[in-house]
Amino acid sequence: MSRPGPGTPEGVPGLTVRSARVKHARRLARRSFRASARQFLAEGPQAVREALGETGVVHEVFATSDAEERHADLREAARALGVPWHTVDDAVLADIADAVTPQGLVAVCHDVVSDITGLPVRPRLVLVCHEIRDPGNVGAVIRCADAAGADAVVLTGDCVDPQNPKAVRASAGSLFHLPVVVHHGHDDVARILRSAGVRLLATTGAAARDLFDEALELASPTAWILGNEAQGLPDAVVEAADAAVAVPILGRAESLNLATAAAVCLYASAKEQR
Amino acid sequence: MSRPGPGTPEGVPGLTVRSARVKHARRLARRSFRASARQFLAEGPQAVREALGETGVVHEVFATSDAEERHADLREAARALGVPWHTVDDAVLADIADAVTPQGLVAVCHDVVSDITGLPVRPRLVLVCHEIRDPGNVGAVIRCADAAGADAVVLTGDCVDPQNPKAVRASAGSLFHLPVVVHHGHDDVARILRSAGVRLLATTGAAARDLFDEALELASPTAWILGNEAQGLPDAVVEAADAAVAVPILGRAESLNLATAAAVCLYASAKEQR
Repeated sequence: MSRPGPGTPEGVPGLTVRSARVKHARRLARRSFRASARQFLAEGPQAVREALGETGVVHEVFATSDAEERHADLREAARALGVPWHTVDDAVLADIADAVTPQGLVAVCHDVVSDITGLPVRPRLVLVCHEIRDPGNVGAVIRCADAAGADAVVLTGDCVDPQNPKAVRASAGSLFHLPVVVHHGHDDVARILRSAGVRLLATTGAAARDLFDEALELASPTAWILGNEAQGLPDAVVEAADAAVAVPILGRAESLNLATAAAVCLYASAKEQR
Repeated sequence: MSRPGPGTPEGVPGLTVRSARVKHARRLARRSFRASARQFLAEGPQAVREALGETGVVHEVFATSDAEERHADLREAARALGVPWHTVDDAVLADIADAVTPQGLVAVCHDVVSDITGLPVRPRLVLVCHEIRDPGNVGAVIRCADAAGADAVVLTGDCVDPQNPKAVRASAGSLFHLPVVVHHGHDDVARILRSAGVRLLATTGAAARDLFDEALELASPTAWILGNEAQGLPDAVVEAADAAVAVPILGRAESLNLATAAAVCLYASAKEQR
Protein backbone atom coordinates (compact mmCIF):
# COMPACT_ATOMS: atom_id res chain seq x y z
CA MET A 1 0.00 0.00 0.00
CA SER A 2 -0.67 3.09 0.40
CA ARG A 3 -1.15 6.84 0.02
CA PRO A 4 2.31 8.41 0.28
CA GLY A 5 1.31 12.01 -0.25
CA PRO A 6 -0.25 14.45 2.23
CA GLY A 7 -3.97 14.76 2.58
CA THR A 8 -6.51 12.26 3.91
CA PRO A 9 -9.72 11.43 2.04
CA GLU A 10 -11.29 14.33 3.94
CA GLY A 11 -8.67 16.67 2.60
CA VAL A 12 -7.13 17.57 5.99
CA PRO A 13 -3.35 17.55 6.01
CA GLY A 14 -1.86 14.07 6.37
CA LEU A 15 -0.20 13.09 9.63
CA THR A 16 3.49 12.25 9.70
CA VAL A 17 5.72 10.71 12.37
CA ARG A 18 6.55 14.28 13.40
CA SER A 19 2.93 15.31 13.98
CA ALA A 20 2.15 16.16 17.60
CA ARG A 21 -0.74 13.71 17.93
CA VAL A 22 1.36 10.89 16.44
CA LYS A 23 4.19 11.64 18.86
CA HIS A 24 1.68 11.68 21.71
CA ALA A 25 0.24 8.30 20.72
CA ARG A 26 3.69 6.79 20.37
CA ARG A 27 4.65 7.92 23.87
CA LEU A 28 1.74 5.88 25.27
CA ALA A 29 4.02 2.85 24.91
CA ARG A 30 5.61 4.08 28.17
CA ARG A 31 3.86 3.35 31.46
CA SER A 32 4.79 6.70 33.01
CA PHE A 33 3.32 8.57 30.05
CA ARG A 34 0.17 6.46 30.13
CA ALA A 35 -0.23 7.32 33.80
CA SER A 36 0.15 11.08 33.26
CA ALA A 37 -1.96 11.18 30.08
CA ARG A 38 -4.55 8.79 31.54
CA GLN A 39 -4.71 7.16 28.12
CA PHE A 40 -3.50 3.94 26.49
CA LEU A 41 -3.44 2.20 23.12
CA ALA A 42 -5.76 -0.50 21.79
CA GLU A 43 -4.26 -2.16 18.71
CA GLY A 44 -5.83 -4.28 15.99
CA PRO A 45 -9.44 -4.61 14.83
CA GLN A 46 -10.72 -6.74 17.72
CA ALA A 47 -9.49 -4.39 20.46
CA VAL A 48 -10.56 -1.28 18.54
CA ARG A 49 -14.05 -2.76 17.98
CA GLU A 50 -14.46 -3.58 21.69
CA ALA A 51 -13.18 -0.14 22.69
CA LEU A 52 -15.63 1.58 20.33
CA GLY A 53 -18.39 -0.50 21.92
CA GLU A 54 -17.94 1.35 25.23
CA THR A 55 -19.18 4.91 25.48
CA GLY A 56 -16.53 7.57 25.98
CA VAL A 57 -13.54 5.22 25.85
CA VAL A 58 -11.98 5.96 22.47
CA HIS A 59 -10.24 9.33 22.06
CA GLU A 60 -9.16 8.86 18.44
CA VAL A 61 -8.38 6.15 15.89
CA PHE A 62 -5.43 5.82 13.52
CA ALA A 63 -5.94 3.54 10.51
CA THR A 64 -4.19 2.77 7.27
CA SER A 65 -6.36 3.14 4.19
CA ASP A 66 -6.16 -0.64 3.71
CA ALA A 67 -7.52 -1.26 7.22
CA GLU A 68 -10.15 1.41 6.69
CA GLU A 69 -11.43 -0.46 3.65
CA ARG A 70 -11.44 -3.79 5.47
CA HIS A 71 -13.21 -2.37 8.53
CA ALA A 72 -15.74 0.09 7.18
CA ASP A 73 -18.00 -0.84 10.12
CA LEU A 74 -15.44 0.53 12.59
CA ARG A 75 -15.07 3.75 10.61
CA GLU A 76 -18.85 4.09 10.71
CA ALA A 77 -18.96 3.35 14.46
CA ALA A 78 -16.33 6.01 15.10
CA ARG A 79 -18.24 8.53 13.00
CA ALA A 80 -21.47 7.79 14.87
CA LEU A 81 -19.71 8.36 18.19
CA GLY A 82 -17.98 11.53 16.99
CA VAL A 83 -14.58 9.89 17.48
CA PRO A 84 -11.85 11.41 15.25
CA TRP A 85 -10.53 8.95 12.63
CA HIS A 86 -7.11 9.60 11.11
CA THR A 87 -6.12 7.86 7.90
CA VAL A 88 -2.35 7.43 8.00
CA ASP A 89 0.30 5.66 5.97
CA ASP A 90 1.99 2.43 7.05
CA ALA A 91 5.03 4.23 8.42
CA VAL A 92 2.96 6.35 10.80
CA LEU A 93 0.92 3.38 12.00
CA ALA A 94 4.05 1.31 12.58
CA ASP A 95 5.55 4.24 14.47
CA ILE A 96 2.61 4.37 16.88
CA ALA A 97 1.96 0.66 17.36
CA ASP A 98 3.70 -1.65 19.77
CA ALA A 99 2.63 -4.79 17.90
CA VAL A 100 4.58 -5.98 14.89
CA THR A 101 1.30 -6.55 13.09
CA PRO A 102 -1.35 -4.16 14.44
CA GLN A 103 -3.35 -4.90 11.26
CA GLY A 104 -3.52 -1.24 10.39
CA LEU A 105 -5.57 -0.03 13.36
CA VAL A 106 -4.69 1.69 16.64
CA ALA A 107 -7.05 3.53 18.99
CA VAL A 108 -5.99 5.99 21.67
CA CYS A 109 -8.28 5.19 24.62
CA HIS A 110 -9.05 6.93 27.88
CA ASP A 111 -8.23 4.92 31.03
CA VAL A 112 -10.61 2.06 31.70
CA VAL A 113 -8.75 0.69 34.71
CA SER A 114 -9.91 2.09 38.02
CA ASP A 115 -8.58 2.52 41.55
CA ILE A 116 -10.00 0.72 44.57
CA THR A 117 -13.19 2.77 44.44
CA GLY A 118 -14.05 0.80 41.29
CA LEU A 119 -14.57 -2.45 43.25
CA PRO A 120 -18.15 -3.68 42.76
CA VAL A 121 -20.34 -3.29 45.84
CA ARG A 122 -21.77 -6.84 46.00
CA PRO A 123 -19.56 -9.06 43.85
CA ARG A 124 -20.18 -12.79 43.63
CA LEU A 125 -16.98 -13.77 41.85
CA VAL A 126 -13.72 -11.82 41.82
CA LEU A 127 -10.21 -12.64 40.62
CA VAL A 128 -7.38 -11.04 42.60
CA CYS A 129 -3.87 -11.32 41.12
CA HIS A 130 -0.93 -10.35 43.30
CA GLU A 131 2.39 -9.21 41.83
CA ILE A 132 1.79 -10.47 38.29
CA ARG A 133 4.75 -9.47 36.14
CA ASP A 134 4.01 -10.65 32.62
CA PRO A 135 1.74 -8.44 30.45
CA GLY A 136 0.56 -11.43 28.41
CA ASN A 137 -0.52 -13.17 31.62
CA VAL A 138 -2.45 -10.16 32.89
CA GLY A 139 -4.32 -9.92 29.61
CA ALA A 140 -4.99 -13.66 29.59
CA VAL A 141 -6.39 -13.71 33.15
CA ILE A 142 -8.67 -10.77 32.35
CA ARG A 143 -9.97 -12.72 29.35
CA CYS A 144 -10.56 -15.83 31.51
CA ALA A 145 -12.30 -13.83 34.23
CA ASP A 146 -14.58 -12.26 31.64
CA ALA A 147 -15.41 -15.66 30.13
CA ALA A 148 -16.20 -17.12 33.56
CA GLY A 149 -18.52 -14.22 34.34
CA ALA A 150 -16.41 -12.70 37.12
CA ASP A 151 -17.55 -9.33 38.44
CA ALA A 152 -14.07 -7.81 38.59
CA VAL A 153 -10.33 -8.42 38.29
CA VAL A 154 -8.17 -6.79 40.96
CA LEU A 155 -4.40 -6.39 40.63
CA THR A 156 -2.50 -5.89 43.88
CA GLY A 157 1.17 -5.38 44.75
CA ASP A 158 3.70 -4.50 42.08
CA CYS A 159 1.71 -5.61 39.07
CA VAL A 160 2.37 -5.05 35.41
CA ASP A 161 0.10 -2.37 33.91
CA PRO A 162 -3.05 -4.01 32.45
CA GLN A 163 -3.12 -1.14 29.91
CA ASN A 164 0.32 -2.15 28.61
CA PRO A 165 -0.12 -2.78 24.85
CA LYS A 166 0.74 -6.49 25.19
CA ALA A 167 -1.74 -6.90 28.04
CA VAL A 168 -4.46 -5.17 26.04
CA ARG A 169 -3.83 -7.51 23.09
CA ALA A 170 -3.79 -10.63 25.29
CA SER A 171 -7.10 -9.65 26.89
CA ALA A 172 -8.74 -10.01 23.45
CA GLY A 173 -11.12 -7.15 24.20
CA SER A 174 -12.06 -8.30 27.71
CA LEU A 175 -10.27 -5.32 29.30
CA PHE A 176 -13.25 -3.30 28.09
CA HIS A 177 -15.85 -5.74 29.47
CA LEU A 178 -15.48 -5.90 33.25
CA PRO A 179 -14.07 -3.71 36.04
CA VAL A 180 -10.28 -4.00 36.31
CA VAL A 181 -9.04 -2.47 39.55
CA VAL A 182 -5.40 -1.66 40.33
CA HIS A 183 -4.50 -1.09 43.99
CA HIS A 184 -1.12 -1.71 45.57
CA GLY A 185 -2.20 -2.64 49.09
CA HIS A 186 -3.52 -6.19 49.12
CA ASP A 187 -4.80 -5.77 52.71
CA ASP A 188 -7.15 -2.97 51.70
CA VAL A 189 -8.64 -5.10 48.95
CA ALA A 190 -9.02 -8.10 51.27
CA ARG A 191 -10.74 -5.98 53.92
CA ILE A 192 -13.20 -4.41 51.50
CA LEU A 193 -14.07 -7.72 49.84
CA ARG A 194 -14.58 -9.43 53.19
CA SER A 195 -16.82 -6.65 54.45
CA ALA A 196 -18.86 -7.16 51.26
CA GLY A 197 -19.43 -10.77 52.32
CA VAL A 198 -16.89 -12.27 49.91
CA ARG A 199 -14.80 -15.25 51.01
CA LEU A 200 -11.10 -15.06 50.11
CA LEU A 201 -9.51 -18.23 48.73
CA ALA A 202 -5.74 -18.08 48.29
CA THR A 203 -4.27 -20.54 45.79
CA THR A 204 -1.05 -22.26 46.75
CA GLY A 205 0.36 -25.66 45.91
CA ALA A 206 1.18 -26.10 49.60
CA ALA A 207 -2.47 -26.00 50.71
CA ALA A 208 -3.96 -29.01 52.50
CA ARG A 209 -7.32 -28.59 50.76
CA ASP A 210 -7.77 -28.63 47.04
CA LEU A 211 -10.20 -27.24 44.53
CA PHE A 212 -12.22 -30.46 44.49
CA ASP A 213 -12.99 -30.27 48.22
CA GLU A 214 -16.80 -30.13 48.48
CA ALA A 215 -16.52 -28.30 51.80
CA LEU A 216 -15.22 -25.23 49.98
CA GLU A 217 -18.83 -24.21 49.31
CA LEU A 218 -18.03 -22.46 46.08
CA ALA A 219 -21.62 -21.34 45.64
CA SER A 220 -21.06 -18.46 48.06
CA PRO A 221 -19.48 -15.15 46.95
CA THR A 222 -15.79 -15.83 46.40
CA ALA A 223 -12.58 -14.03 45.52
CA TRP A 224 -9.82 -16.24 44.12
CA ILE A 225 -6.34 -14.92 44.90
CA LEU A 226 -3.50 -15.99 42.62
CA GLY A 227 0.15 -15.07 43.03
CA ASN A 228 3.24 -14.22 41.05
CA GLU A 229 4.26 -16.54 38.18
CA ALA A 230 7.49 -17.64 39.84
CA GLN A 231 7.07 -17.07 43.57
CA GLY A 232 3.37 -17.68 44.11
CA LEU A 233 1.68 -15.87 46.98
CA PRO A 234 3.57 -14.48 49.99
CA ASP A 235 2.74 -16.20 53.29
CA ALA A 236 1.08 -13.07 54.66
CA VAL A 237 -1.46 -13.03 51.84
CA VAL A 238 -2.23 -16.73 52.28
CA GLU A 239 -2.64 -16.35 56.04
CA ALA A 240 -4.94 -13.37 55.67
CA ALA A 241 -7.27 -15.37 53.37
CA ASP A 242 -10.22 -17.44 54.61
CA ALA A 243 -8.76 -20.62 53.17
CA ALA A 244 -5.74 -21.82 51.22
CA VAL A 245 -6.60 -24.00 48.24
CA ALA A 246 -4.42 -26.01 45.87
CA VAL A 247 -5.25 -26.48 42.22
CA PRO A 248 -4.52 -30.20 42.11
CA ILE A 249 -1.83 -31.42 39.73
CA LEU A 250 -2.97 -34.95 38.99
CA GLY A 251 -0.33 -35.95 36.46
CA ARG A 252 3.36 -35.18 36.36
CA ALA A 253 3.21 -31.56 35.16
CA GLU A 254 5.12 -29.16 37.35
CA SER A 255 2.32 -26.61 37.32
CA LEU A 256 -0.43 -24.96 35.30
CA ASN A 257 0.20 -21.54 33.84
CA LEU A 258 -1.42 -18.60 35.55
CA ALA A 259 -4.34 -18.05 33.18
CA THR A 260 -5.18 -21.74 33.09
CA ALA A 261 -5.14 -22.00 36.88
CA ALA A 262 -7.36 -18.91 37.08
CA ALA A 263 -9.81 -20.39 34.57
CA VAL A 264 -10.04 -23.71 36.42
CA CYS A 265 -10.76 -21.94 39.74
CA LEU A 266 -13.22 -19.42 38.30
CA TYR A 267 -15.17 -22.02 36.34
CA ALA A 268 -15.38 -24.25 39.42
CA SER A 269 -17.03 -21.34 41.23
CA ALA A 270 -19.18 -20.38 38.25
CA LYS A 271 -20.59 -23.91 38.11
CA GLU A 272 -21.60 -23.88 41.78
CA GLN A 273 -22.94 -20.33 41.63
CA ARG A 274 -25.23 -20.97 38.70
CA MET B 1 31.99 -17.24 28.39
CA SER B 2 33.39 -19.44 26.62
CA ARG B 3 36.01 -21.78 25.17
CA PRO B 4 36.83 -20.61 21.66
CA GLY B 5 39.48 -23.20 20.81
CA PRO B 6 39.08 -26.81 19.83
CA GLY B 7 38.93 -29.58 22.39
CA THR B 8 36.28 -30.35 24.98
CA PRO B 9 37.15 -31.14 28.60
CA GLU B 10 37.42 -34.76 27.50
CA GLY B 11 39.99 -33.81 24.91
CA VAL B 12 37.95 -34.81 21.84
CA PRO B 13 38.00 -32.27 19.03
CA GLY B 14 35.56 -29.36 19.52
CA LEU B 15 32.43 -29.23 17.39
CA THR B 16 31.87 -26.41 14.94
CA VAL B 17 28.85 -25.33 12.91
CA ARG B 18 30.31 -27.45 10.08
CA SER B 19 30.48 -30.67 12.12
CA ALA B 20 28.20 -33.41 10.84
CA ARG B 21 26.38 -33.92 14.14
CA VAL B 22 25.77 -30.18 14.50
CA LYS B 23 24.38 -29.99 10.97
CA HIS B 24 22.18 -32.99 11.74
CA ALA B 25 20.79 -31.39 14.90
CA ARG B 26 20.15 -28.11 13.12
CA ARG B 27 18.16 -29.86 10.40
CA LEU B 28 15.75 -31.17 13.09
CA ALA B 29 14.14 -27.73 12.95
CA ARG B 30 12.39 -29.02 9.81
CA ARG B 31 9.35 -31.28 10.18
CA SER B 32 10.28 -33.46 7.19
CA PHE B 33 13.74 -34.10 8.60
CA ARG B 34 12.33 -34.86 12.06
CA ALA B 35 10.02 -37.41 10.44
CA SER B 36 12.82 -39.16 8.53
CA ALA B 37 15.33 -39.04 11.40
CA ARG B 38 12.68 -39.96 13.98
CA GLN B 39 14.30 -37.42 16.28
CA PHE B 40 13.53 -33.92 17.59
CA LEU B 41 15.06 -31.20 19.76
CA ALA B 42 14.37 -30.43 23.41
CA GLU B 43 15.72 -26.99 24.32
CA GLY B 44 16.50 -25.40 27.67
CA PRO B 45 17.16 -26.93 31.09
CA GLN B 46 13.57 -27.87 31.93
CA ALA B 47 12.93 -29.83 28.73
CA VAL B 48 16.37 -31.45 28.82
CA ARG B 49 15.84 -32.50 32.44
CA GLU B 50 12.46 -34.07 31.67
CA ALA B 51 13.86 -35.81 28.59
CA LEU B 52 16.75 -37.25 30.60
CA GLY B 53 14.18 -38.52 33.10
CA GLU B 54 12.79 -40.95 30.50
CA THR B 55 14.83 -44.02 29.61
CA GLY B 56 16.13 -44.15 26.06
CA VAL B 57 14.77 -40.78 24.96
CA VAL B 58 17.89 -38.61 24.76
CA HIS B 59 20.33 -39.33 21.93
CA GLU B 60 22.87 -36.62 22.80
CA VAL B 61 23.14 -33.26 24.56
CA PHE B 62 24.80 -30.04 23.41
CA ALA B 63 25.69 -27.55 26.15
CA THR B 64 27.72 -24.38 26.48
CA SER B 65 30.33 -24.50 29.24
CA ASP B 66 28.32 -21.88 31.13
CA ALA B 67 25.20 -24.07 31.06
CA GLU B 68 27.27 -27.10 31.99
CA GLU B 69 28.45 -25.33 35.13
CA ARG B 70 24.93 -24.20 36.05
CA HIS B 71 23.44 -27.66 35.47
CA ALA B 72 26.03 -30.12 36.75
CA ASP B 73 23.13 -32.42 37.73
CA LEU B 74 22.10 -32.79 34.10
CA ARG B 75 25.66 -33.53 33.05
CA GLU B 76 25.78 -36.20 35.74
CA ALA B 77 22.40 -37.63 34.68
CA ALA B 78 23.60 -37.87 31.07
CA ARG B 79 26.81 -39.57 32.17
CA ALA B 80 24.86 -42.10 34.27
CA LEU B 81 22.65 -42.92 31.27
CA GLY B 82 25.59 -43.15 28.88
CA VAL B 83 24.22 -40.23 26.85
CA PRO B 84 26.91 -38.33 24.91
CA TRP B 85 27.42 -34.74 26.15
CA HIS B 86 29.04 -32.21 23.83
CA THR B 87 30.43 -28.99 25.22
CA VAL B 88 30.11 -26.37 22.48
CA ASP B 89 30.59 -22.65 22.15
CA ASP B 90 27.73 -20.15 22.00
CA ALA B 91 27.81 -19.95 18.21
CA VAL B 92 27.30 -23.69 17.79
CA LEU B 93 24.48 -23.80 20.32
CA ALA B 94 22.74 -20.82 18.71
CA ASP B 95 23.13 -22.54 15.34
CA ILE B 96 21.32 -25.66 16.55
CA ALA B 97 18.61 -24.09 18.69
CA ASP B 98 15.29 -22.74 17.50
CA ALA B 99 14.74 -20.65 20.63
CA VAL B 100 16.33 -17.21 20.92
CA THR B 101 17.35 -18.11 24.48
CA PRO B 102 17.80 -21.88 24.79
CA GLN B 103 19.79 -21.17 27.98
CA GLY B 104 22.79 -23.06 26.66
CA LEU B 105 21.22 -26.54 26.45
CA VAL B 106 19.76 -28.58 23.60
CA ALA B 107 19.09 -32.33 23.57
CA VAL B 108 18.57 -34.42 20.46
CA CYS B 109 15.75 -36.81 21.42
CA HIS B 110 14.32 -39.92 19.83
CA ASP B 111 10.61 -39.71 18.91
CA VAL B 112 8.27 -39.82 21.90
CA VAL B 113 5.09 -39.28 19.92
CA SER B 114 3.41 -42.47 18.77
CA ASP B 115 0.96 -43.59 16.12
CA ILE B 116 -2.54 -44.89 16.86
CA THR B 117 -1.15 -48.10 18.38
CA GLY B 118 0.04 -45.92 21.29
CA LEU B 119 -3.52 -45.25 22.48
CA PRO B 120 -3.95 -46.53 26.05
CA VAL B 121 -6.08 -49.67 26.30
CA ARG B 122 -8.44 -48.54 29.09
CA PRO B 123 -8.19 -44.75 29.34
CA ARG B 124 -10.38 -42.81 31.75
CA LEU B 125 -9.60 -39.32 30.46
CA VAL B 126 -8.33 -38.40 27.00
CA LEU B 127 -7.92 -35.10 25.18
CA VAL B 128 -8.42 -35.22 21.42
CA CYS B 129 -7.45 -32.10 19.43
CA HIS B 130 -8.51 -31.88 15.80
CA GLU B 131 -6.64 -29.73 13.27
CA ILE B 132 -4.69 -27.64 15.78
CA ARG B 133 -2.38 -25.31 13.89
CA ASP B 134 -0.40 -23.36 16.45
CA PRO B 135 2.67 -25.07 17.99
CA GLY B 136 2.35 -23.04 21.19
CA ASN B 137 -1.24 -24.24 21.58
CA VAL B 138 -0.33 -27.88 21.09
CA GLY B 139 2.36 -27.62 23.74
CA ALA B 140 0.01 -25.80 26.10
CA VAL B 141 -2.79 -28.37 25.77
CA ILE B 142 -0.33 -31.21 26.42
CA ARG B 143 0.75 -29.40 29.59
CA CYS B 144 -2.89 -28.96 30.69
CA ALA B 145 -3.74 -32.58 29.95
CA ASP B 146 -0.75 -33.71 32.00
CA ALA B 147 -1.73 -31.46 34.92
CA ALA B 148 -5.31 -32.75 34.85
CA GLY B 149 -4.10 -36.35 34.92
CA ALA B 150 -5.27 -37.27 31.41
CA ASP B 151 -4.17 -40.67 30.11
CA ALA B 152 -3.31 -39.44 26.61
CA VAL B 153 -3.45 -36.57 24.15
CA VAL B 154 -4.48 -37.47 20.60
CA LEU B 155 -3.95 -35.15 17.62
CA THR B 156 -6.14 -35.82 14.59
CA GLY B 157 -6.50 -34.24 11.16
CA ASP B 158 -3.85 -31.85 9.86
CA CYS B 159 -2.23 -30.97 13.15
CA VAL B 160 0.97 -29.11 13.85
CA ASP B 161 3.82 -31.43 14.89
CA PRO B 162 3.91 -31.74 18.71
CA GLN B 163 7.67 -32.27 18.39
CA ASN B 164 8.07 -28.86 16.76
CA PRO B 165 10.58 -26.93 18.92
CA LYS B 166 7.98 -24.33 19.93
CA ALA B 167 5.49 -27.03 20.90
CA VAL B 168 8.12 -28.83 22.97
CA ARG B 169 8.94 -25.60 24.83
CA ALA B 170 5.27 -24.76 25.44
CA SER B 171 4.62 -28.22 26.87
CA ALA B 172 7.04 -27.39 29.71
CA GLY B 173 8.26 -30.98 29.83
CA SER B 174 4.81 -32.59 29.69
CA LEU B 175 5.47 -34.00 26.21
CA PHE B 176 7.66 -36.54 28.04
CA HIS B 177 5.03 -37.37 30.66
CA LEU B 178 2.03 -38.88 28.91
CA PRO B 179 1.27 -40.65 25.63
CA VAL B 180 0.89 -38.22 22.74
CA VAL B 181 -0.64 -39.92 19.71
CA VAL B 182 -0.74 -38.48 16.19
CA HIS B 183 -3.21 -40.03 13.75
CA HIS B 184 -4.81 -38.29 10.80
CA GLY B 185 -8.12 -40.13 10.68
CA HIS B 186 -10.41 -38.85 13.41
CA ASP B 187 -12.93 -41.64 12.74
CA ASP B 188 -10.39 -44.33 13.60
CA VAL B 189 -9.60 -42.67 16.90
CA ALA B 190 -13.29 -42.23 17.73
CA ARG B 191 -14.01 -45.89 16.95
CA ILE B 192 -11.15 -47.22 19.07
CA LEU B 193 -11.97 -44.98 22.02
CA ARG B 194 -15.64 -45.90 21.89
CA SER B 195 -14.85 -49.60 21.76
CA ALA B 196 -12.72 -49.05 24.87
CA GLY B 197 -15.83 -47.76 26.65
CA VAL B 198 -14.91 -44.09 26.41
CA ARG B 199 -17.62 -41.51 25.81
CA LEU B 200 -16.80 -38.83 23.20
CA LEU B 201 -17.73 -35.25 24.10
CA ALA B 202 -17.27 -32.72 21.29
CA THR B 203 -16.90 -29.10 22.37
CA THR B 204 -18.71 -26.49 20.34
CA GLY B 205 -20.21 -23.17 21.25
CA ALA B 206 -23.36 -24.16 19.34
CA ALA B 207 -24.16 -27.09 21.66
CA ALA B 208 -27.45 -27.10 23.56
CA ARG B 209 -25.85 -28.65 26.67
CA ASP B 210 -23.00 -27.10 28.52
CA LEU B 211 -20.18 -28.25 30.75
CA PHE B 212 -22.20 -27.58 33.91
CA ASP B 213 -24.97 -30.00 32.91
CA GLU B 214 -25.09 -32.64 35.66
CA ALA B 215 -26.51 -35.17 33.21
CA LEU B 216 -23.14 -35.30 31.46
CA GLU B 217 -21.99 -37.88 34.01
CA LEU B 218 -18.40 -36.83 33.84
CA ALA B 219 -17.34 -39.59 36.23
CA SER B 220 -17.39 -42.13 33.40
CA PRO B 221 -14.44 -42.55 31.00
CA THR B 222 -14.43 -39.54 28.71
CA ALA B 223 -12.59 -38.15 25.71
CA TRP B 224 -12.90 -34.40 25.23
CA ILE B 225 -12.66 -33.36 21.58
CA LEU B 226 -11.55 -29.79 20.82
CA GLY B 227 -11.26 -28.22 17.38
CA ASN B 228 -9.19 -25.80 15.40
CA GLU B 229 -8.45 -22.37 16.89
CA ALA B 230 -10.41 -20.46 14.26
CA GLN B 231 -12.95 -22.89 12.81
CA GLY B 232 -13.76 -25.14 15.76
CA LEU B 233 -14.83 -28.70 15.01
CA PRO B 234 -16.30 -29.79 11.65
CA ASP B 235 -19.94 -30.90 11.80
CA ALA B 236 -19.02 -34.49 10.98
CA VAL B 237 -16.82 -34.76 14.08
CA VAL B 238 -19.50 -33.25 16.30
CA GLU B 239 -22.18 -35.55 14.91
CA ALA B 240 -20.01 -38.63 15.40
CA ALA B 241 -19.51 -37.81 19.09
CA ASP B 242 -21.79 -39.04 21.87
CA ALA B 243 -22.68 -35.51 22.88
CA ALA B 244 -21.92 -31.92 21.92
CA VAL B 245 -20.99 -29.71 24.87
CA ALA B 246 -20.43 -25.96 25.14
CA VAL B 247 -17.89 -24.44 27.49
CA PRO B 248 -20.18 -21.69 28.77
CA ILE B 249 -19.10 -18.10 28.24
CA LEU B 250 -20.77 -16.34 31.15
CA GLY B 251 -19.46 -12.82 30.62
CA ARG B 252 -18.87 -10.91 27.42
CA ALA B 253 -15.64 -12.59 26.26
CA GLU B 254 -15.79 -13.88 22.72
CA SER B 255 -14.16 -17.18 23.67
CA LEU B 256 -11.56 -18.91 25.80
CA ASN B 257 -8.27 -19.83 24.23
CA LEU B 258 -7.74 -23.46 23.36
CA ALA B 259 -5.56 -24.50 26.31
CA THR B 260 -7.84 -22.77 28.79
CA ALA B 261 -10.93 -24.44 27.36
CA ALA B 262 -9.13 -27.80 27.48
CA ALA B 263 -8.15 -27.24 31.11
CA VAL B 264 -11.67 -26.31 32.16
CA CYS B 265 -13.13 -29.44 30.51
CA LEU B 266 -10.43 -31.81 31.77
CA TYR B 267 -10.56 -30.52 35.34
CA ALA B 268 -14.36 -30.82 35.35
CA SER B 269 -13.92 -34.51 34.47
CA ALA B 270 -11.02 -34.99 36.87
CA LYS B 271 -13.15 -33.70 39.73
CA GLU B 272 -15.97 -36.15 39.03
CA GLN B 273 -13.61 -39.05 38.38
CA ARG B 274 -11.77 -38.69 41.66
